[in-house]
Amino acid sequence: MDGAGLFNAKGPRFMDDVVFTDKLSLRELGEDYASVHVVTDSNVARLVLPGTDAPCSWNVVVLQAGEENKNLDALSHVWRELTAQGATRGSLVVNIGGGVVTDLGGFAAATYQRGVDFVNVPTTLLAMVDASTGGKTAIDFDGLKNQIGVFAAPSKVIICPRVLATLPRVELLSGYGEVMKHALLEGRTPTPRQASAELEALVSNPSGAVGLLRRDVAVKQRLVASDPRDRGARQALNLGHTVGHALEAHFTLARRKKLPHGIAVAYGLLVELVLSHTQLGFPSCELYPLAETLRSLYAPVAPLGVVCEDYPELLRLMGHDKKNAEQSRPAFSLLSSPGVPALGQTPGADAISAALDIARDLLGE
Amino acid sequence: MDGAGLFNAKGPRFMDDVVFTDKLSLRELGEDYASVHVVTDSNVARLVLPGTDAPCSWNVVVLQAGEENKNLDALSHVWRELTAQGATRGSLVVNIGGGVVTDLGGFAAATYQRGVDFVNVPTTLLAMVDASTGGKTAIDFDGLKNQIGVFAAPSKVIICPRVLATLPRVELLSGYGEVMKHALLEGRTPTPRQASAELEALVSNPSGAVGLLRRDVAVKQRLVASDPRDRGARQALNLGHTVGHALEAHFTLARRKKLPHGIAVAYGLLVELVLSHTQLGFPSCELYPLAETLRSLYAPVAPLGVVCEDYPELLRLMGHDKKNAEQSRPAFSLLSSPGVPALGQTPGADAISAALDIARDLLGE
Repeated sequence: MDGAGLFNAKGPRFMDDVVFTDKLSLRELGEDYASVHVVTDSNVARLVLPGTDAPCSWNVVVLQAGEENKNLDALSHVWRELTAQGATRGSLVVNIGGGVVTDLGGFAAATYQRGVDFVNVPTTLLAMVDASTGGKTAIDFDGLKNQIGVFAAPSKVIICPRVLATLPRVELLSGYGEVMKHALLEGRTPTPRQASAELEALVSNPSGAVGLLRRDVAVKQRLVASDPRDRGARQALNLGHTVGHALEAHFTLARRKKLPHGIAVAYGLLVELVLSHTQLGFPSCELYPLAETLRSLYAPVAPLGVVCEDYPELLRLMGHDKKNAEQSRPAFSLLSSPGVPALGQTPGADAISAALDIARDLLGE
Repeated sequence: MDGAGLFNAKGPRFMDDVVFTDKLSLRELGEDYASVHVVTDSNVARLVLPGTDAPCSWNVVVLQAGEENKNLDALSHVWRELTAQGATRGSLVVNIGGGVVTDLGGFAAATYQRGVDFVNVPTTLLAMVDASTGGKTAIDFDGLKNQIGVFAAPSKVIICPRVLATLPRVELLSGYGEVMKHALLEGRTPTPRQASAELEALVSNPSGAVGLLRRDVAVKQRLVASDPRDRGARQALNLGHTVGHALEAHFTLARRKKLPHGIAVAYGLLVELVLSHTQLGFPSCELYPLAETLRSLYAPVAPLGVVCEDYPELLRLMGHDKKNAEQSRPAFSLLSSPGVPALGQTPGADAISAALDIARDLLGE
C-alpha cells in the first residue's frame, strides 16, 4: 500500500532545484531542448510574460485565469495544444503563473507522451511558497480539489519576488496563509505586527523578500524530502487544509463566492488550532495572536462568513478529503504543542462543529 | 532531459512482480486494502469475471470493449466511478481485461488522488506478453496512440493462460505479433511451423503455455529493467511499432477498419525488417520465414490491404510517433543483424515507401 510504485530512472528526487532571482531570465532554460512550450494564464500572459526574455520561438498555451478553470477541459486544451505545437519527449514545458498554472501545467507535462521535463516559474506568493515546489500536480475533478494528479518534480523552480509587487492584496493574503502555516509548524505564532511587516517587505523590499521566501520554502522542502509521497511526515503540511479545502470547495465551487485557497487555509488554521486545543491540549494562548491576525488583516478583505447552515455540507466535504484512509471519516493534521505535529487525528462531527463555533467567536463573526 | 523526475518513495521498481497461475484466485489481493475496485470491459465482465472468486463486496467499473474506447471519456468515467464508490489512497484497483483495460485502468489508478496501487490481470495474449507489464499506462488522444499517460508499475501482474481458450483467433494472432517481436529481438525468426505449434499450445496446453509465456515475458522484463523510462535500451521493444502504430491508427482510427494492435505490429515487423535490410544490411534470408508466417497465418484472417494511396498518410502518422526526437522525422528501432538492435534510425521517406512496396510484394499483396 505504498503508492503506484512509479519508476524513476535517476533514483528518487527529493529536493527541488529552487533558484531565487532578481530578474526573470528564462531564455537559457530552452538550451538542449527540441522545443519550449510556455503554459500560462490570460493575466500572466498580459502582465508578466512581456517583461521576461522568453524568445519569440517559444510556443505559448494560454489558460483562462481562475481556480474554476483547473479542470479537465483546460487540461485537454493543454494536451491538444502541445500536440498541435509538435511537442516531443525532448521538449520542455515552462509553467509561468499561480498554483492553477503550475499544478495543471505540471500534470499536463508529466502525462504528455508519458512525461516531459517541466520548469515552474511561480508568479503568486501562494505558488512560490507552496504549489510550485514539492512535486504535487493535479486538477480538480467532480467538485473535489486536486482529485486527479501525479507526483512529478519540476526540473527547476525559478522564484523572482519582483513579480509580487503587482499582485492584488487578496492574492498576497492568500499566499501568506501558507506562510503562517509554515511558521506554526516551526513553533512560531504569526502576530498581526509580524504579518504586516512581512507582507510589506514582500512587495517593497526584494532582498528582504528573498530571505523570507528562502526560509519559507525550506520549511516545506524539509518535510517533502523526508516523505515525498505524502504517506507520513509530509502530512504535517496539511495543517489547516482539511477545513481549508472544505471551505474553499463549499464557497468557490458550490456557492460561487470566491474564497482563495490560502485565505481558506488561513481560516482553516484557526479552526484546526482550536481542534488541536480541544482534542490534544495545544495551549489556548497560542490561538489569540492568530485570531487577531485574521481579524485585523484577513476579515476586512475576505471575511469567513460561515453560518450554522453551512456545517453539514462542510463536514461532508471534509469526509471526501484525500487524506482520509476511510471515506467520510475526516482526518486532520493537528499540533499537539507549538511546532509538534499530530497526524491522522479523527475528531468526531460534534468536536469539529464546536471548533467551527469557537473559531467564529474568536473572529467576532 | 531525463523525464519528469517522478518520485518513488521505495526507490526504483524495475521488475514487475509477475505471477503465473492455473486458476484466477483474486480474493486475497484485497487483504490490507480499504476497498477494491475492479476495472474491466463489457466482454470480460460477462465471460471471465464470473469464473473468478472476486468477492461481491468488490466494486466494479465496466468499460465498453474496444480500442476506440481507450479515450478521455472512458478515463473520466473510471475517475468518476472511483470517486462515487468512495475509493481512497488506501484502496486497490484491479484491472481485468486486455491492453485497453490495463493501459487505461493503470493510468486511472496512477492518477486518482495522485496514485493508488493497482494489479493487472491480463485476459488476452497481447496484454499478457506486452501491455500488462513494463509500467506503461496511457490513453489515446487526438487520434494518436498512447499520447497521454505515465510510467507506473503495477504492484502485481497475474497471468492465467486458461482464459486464452475462449479468445477469438484474431486476438490470439494479435498477441502473437508481440511474441514474434520478442523472438526476433533474441535472434530467432518465427517460422510458420513454430508459430502454428505455439498458437496451438497456448489454447490447448496450459503447462506448455506457461512455459512459453514465462520465456516471453522475461524478454520484455529484461529490456525494461535496463531502461524503465524508455530512453535507451528499452526502445528495442519498438521494433515493428513505428510502422505498426501508423497502420493501426490509419485503419482503426481513420478508415474505421479494425486492425488489432498486434496484427499491425506483425506487419510492421516485416516492413521494418525490410528497412533493416536496405539500411543496415540485415540478412535478407531472415525475412522470408517471417513473410511466410504472415502470409499463411495472418493474411487469411486479416490481410494488410495497404495501397499506394495510403502512403502519404502512413508517413505522416509515423512522424507523430512519441519515439521521434524531432516532430515529423520518424525514428525506427531496427535490427542490424539477428538479435542486435539498432536504435534511433531515421531513414528517409523514399526508403520507407520502398520498404512498404517490398513488404507488400513479399506478402503477395
